[in-house]
Amino acid sequence: MPLPFITPLTPENLRQAGIPAPWAFGLQDQVRFGELDALAHVNNGAYLGWFENFRIHYFREYGVDEYRGVFPRIVLRQIGLEFLSEVRLHDIYIVTGRTVSFRRTSWAMEYAVWVDGVMTTKGSAVLVNLDQTGAKSALPPAWTAKFVERDGAVQA
Amino acid sequence: MPLPFITPLTPENLRQAGIPAPWAFGLQDQVRFGELDALAHVNNGAYLGWFENFRIHYFREYGVDEYRGVFPRIVLRQIGLEFLSEVRLHDIYIVTGRTVSFRRTSWAMEYAVWVDGVMTTKGSAVLVNLDQTGAKSALPPAWTAKFVERDGAVQA
Amino acid sequence: MPLPFITPLTPENLRQAGIPAPWAFGLQDQVRFGELDALAHVNNGAYLGWFENFRIHYFREYGVDEYRGVFPRIVLRQIGLEFLSEVRLHDIYIVTGRTVSFRRTSWAMEYAVWVDGVMTTKGSAVLVNLDQTGAKSALPPAWTAKFVERDGAVQA
Amino acid sequence: MPLPFITPLTPENLRQAGIPAPWAFGLQDQVRFGELDALAHVNNGAYLGWFENFRIHYFREYGVDEYRGVFPRIVLRQIGLEFLSEVRLHDIYIVTGRTVSFRRTSWAMEYAVWVDGVMTTKGSAVLVNLDQTGAKSALPPAWTAKFVERDGAVQA
Repeated sequence: MPLPFITPLTPENLRQAGIPAPWAFGLQDQVRFGELDALAHVNNGAYLGWFENFRIHYFREYGVDEYRGVFPRIVLRQIGLEFLSEVRLHDIYIVTGRTVSFRRTSWAMEYAVWVDGVMTTKGSAVLVNLDQTGAKSALPPAWTAKFVERDGAVQA
Repeated sequence: MPLPFITPLTPENLRQAGIPAPWAFGLQDQVRFGELDALAHVNNGAYLGWFENFRIHYFREYGVDEYRGVFPRIVLRQIGLEFLSEVRLHDIYIVTGRTVSFRRTSWAMEYAVWVDGVMTTKGSAVLVNLDQTGAKSALPPAWTAKFVERDGAVQA
Repeated sequence: MPLPFITPLTPENLRQAGIPAPWAFGLQDQVRFGELDALAHVNNGAYLGWFENFRIHYFREYGVDEYRGVFPRIVLRQIGLEFLSEVRLHDIYIVTGRTVSFRRTSWAMEYAVWVDGVMTTKGSAVLVNLDQTGAKSALPPAWTAKFVERDGAVQA
Repeated sequence: MPLPFITPLTPENLRQAGIPAPWAFGLQDQVRFGELDALAHVNNGAYLGWFENFRIHYFREYGVDEYRGVFPRIVLRQIGLEFLSEVRLHDIYIVTGRTVSFRRTSWAMEYAVWVDGVMTTKGSAVLVNLDQTGAKSALPPAWTAKFVERDGAVQA
């Protein structure tokens, strides 16, 4: 049944949409009325929701453990947002994200929002891997191998 | 560029998805992490957001004036939600909606959420048309004609 | 330390605020920027959030079990909202709620939002008590006694 | 009528709550159920909403122009969040914020969330002042004087 829905975009899809390398993974969606604030701008929290949703698909695609409420789990240590230009109601946008670098127990991701091939918003996050006791835990080599292979991430 | 995104579903799409007549218009989407509450259920407000988003597409498709912050405008008088079964993270759902009846200045809509052809949630709304002064105003015949033709709505 | 914060309002507080009997329990708060939609109205979902927050305080005060993600638990079967007049940014509002009637395994609540002693919004909910297996379960007499004593609820 | 509600906290209130200088302005509130995500943590967007709400009160208190959808207006250029420890349901928290530095047309704020006198979350923002044409515009001296006087801000 050919019902359309949100599907991760491949590097080829991204290039066709005017999004340059090294961005290798993306999701496409449309701005909803409920994501606007009283000034009719996309509210700050909505961007974080987009990046959060992106991470869930990215984790699955890259073989990283899912978000969980119990240990072992992955937690966010830092988040950043930088606003370059406005995103408007009904804009169709693409969220891209990639791991840029990793250390023993943490890694750094960058995100971007694109409308018509133009980057409107930048994001960043630092994520930490915790073990059953809640202590910092080394990233599995299977994860970091994917970060390197697919995203060109570097060991920091 | 064949990037998939949210597109209104036709009656044929809906029948293929196991959704019976008279539902004639729908939108498909996927439950996001950010729509869950602390009990890992889709929160009540998320359903209202889905119906709100549906109305915007429905209004456009049926030639009803857009939501606006200034008069003339359309306002919600009532909303109802009935929970039949749970909707879960990552569920792909379809929201359907139709106008079931109309009066001189107001009309009644029904909504439903479907997962795998099963209705999980029912919704309802009463909408009122206001003129430049904020007074109730007769529904344009072009709107009610569409409500009758496409949704089988009846004059109440 | 006299730091002010949200505290449940007593029947006496409510009467002073111009809210009539039989409303017996309330919470006061102020409309936040983030609760407005792009038309600068309080969005529908925000009202449901207010009532949800009210229920948590009400449950605690009336000795009803807390919201839980696991069985036994209380679930919402229906919610309704009726909009009487607008609530605006920075309005200080009071949410009141009471149980109006109960059956063997479920009960019906009514809610209202008040600004300057005027009811702006009405709400309703039907809640069901589920046991460890997820089956409907009789309401404990301690709950229904409180519903009768404090809210004047009737057996339906 | 002594109904309690959210009121800006003075430096004296903050010191009593164990929050050190130079924090000079704060708001107190309580974590709501609807601010939790499916892992029962306060979701990222909720923190941004707290800081946004803080800014509105801060702007009013410091004589900075209000948020507006039309020019002249103030826009956010950057936001950052750093998570130090968890904030939980029903925690009573204080949000503090201050301007740390300013340039000709922009200024930098820092925020913090405190529970029982412990800083749980840090935030930051860069704000830009735009004139009627949407161009960057010098900060009025009345604003920067307040930033210096009340917050100890420095010219960058």
